[in-house]
Amino acid sequence: MKVKDLNELYLNELRDLYSAETQIVNALPKIASAVETPELKDAIYAHLEQTKGQVFRLESIFQDMGVKPTGNKCEATEGLLKEGSNLLDEIDKGAVRDAAIISAAQRVEHYEIAAYGTARTFAELLGFNEHAALLQETLDEEFGADAALTDLAVGRVNARALNGQATSSLPFVKGA
Amino acid sequence: MKVKDLNELYLNELRDLYSAETQIVNALPKIASAVETPELKDAIYAHLEQTKGQVFRLESIFQDMGVKPTGNKCEATEGLLKEGSNLLDEIDKGAVRDAAIISAAQRVEHYEIAAYGTARTFAELLGFNEHAALLQETLDEEFGADAALTDLAVGRVNARALNGQATSSLPFVKGA
Repeated sequence: MKVKDLNELYLNELRDLYSAETQIVNALPKIASAVETPELKDAIYAHLEQTKGQVFRLESIFQDMGVKPTGNKCEATEGLLKEGSNLLDEIDKGAVRDAAIISAAQRVEHYEIAAYGTARTFAELLGFNEHAALLQETLDEEFGADAALTDLAVGRVNARALNGQATSSLPFVKGA
Repeated sequence: MKVKDLNELYLNELRDLYSAETQIVNALPKIASAVETPELKDAIYAHLEQTKGQVFRLESIFQDMGVKPTGNKCEATEGLLKEGSNLLDEIDKGAVRDAAIISAAQRVEHYEIAAYGTARTFAELLGFNEHAALLQETLDEEFGADAALTDLAVGRVNARALNGQATSSLPFVKGA
């Protein structure tokens, strides 16, 4: 679709987010099952439920606009999730894999933070005040999810991932 | 490469960032030439120079570790840049395209913010304090670049992109 004005760019952003969120909903169960740390597994399942609510918010916006939500495939999210999926192949189950999963998940959260921030700003500019409020709710949730992942990394996962450095075959290993 | 411990995960993160930055260095000139707003064009060229400095910082870290920087292709950045490139095909030159370019660029900035934040934390955990300082410098630059893009959107580009709404063919157009 040729994008000619800010309304069409706004719709483009929303469809990109819809594609992103549906891809994330599909990916999260596999990611949760690959995790070892129970608190991280719980956080991923909680975010899965939260993400379903975010999809529902987007659907209500599309309904208000009288347009269908599909039509854009979010290639960035596809790349982000592919990168995360590769990590599962490269790292056996355990704390190091959990640290990698947090790292990949925070990249996805930040993608969404940027994208929802833009969509919310466009909604405000275009006078879609109810959309802007809905998008802000999701944006706040994404910030919260990112902060929760940092807390899990710092408080639970990273210290355990640091154990076992002595097994490394790389030349630059320090201390441990 | 199989990742067995946090050292190897750290190296994996750094190689991912190196691939991301080199892809970005290659993409920015084309993006700058597709821009209309002079201040945005200037900001993109300034960020290109900044990004070259970020590549140099990463290279000095690899040198310190005695390993080569290549080996990971950052598929997320590939997806992010492909998405941005598609926007150039979908939108003619002008303020709406500039708003879209800012949107895409902020997604890339946020990817880097997440990735450098993780790499900096891993460097600290592993006792690579000089690396951590270098990665923090780049992280600060990415936050700055993201904020500068928001200022350009709010202060220059969005209001101009909002003009011409009356030309929209979509059913949900408001006001304008």
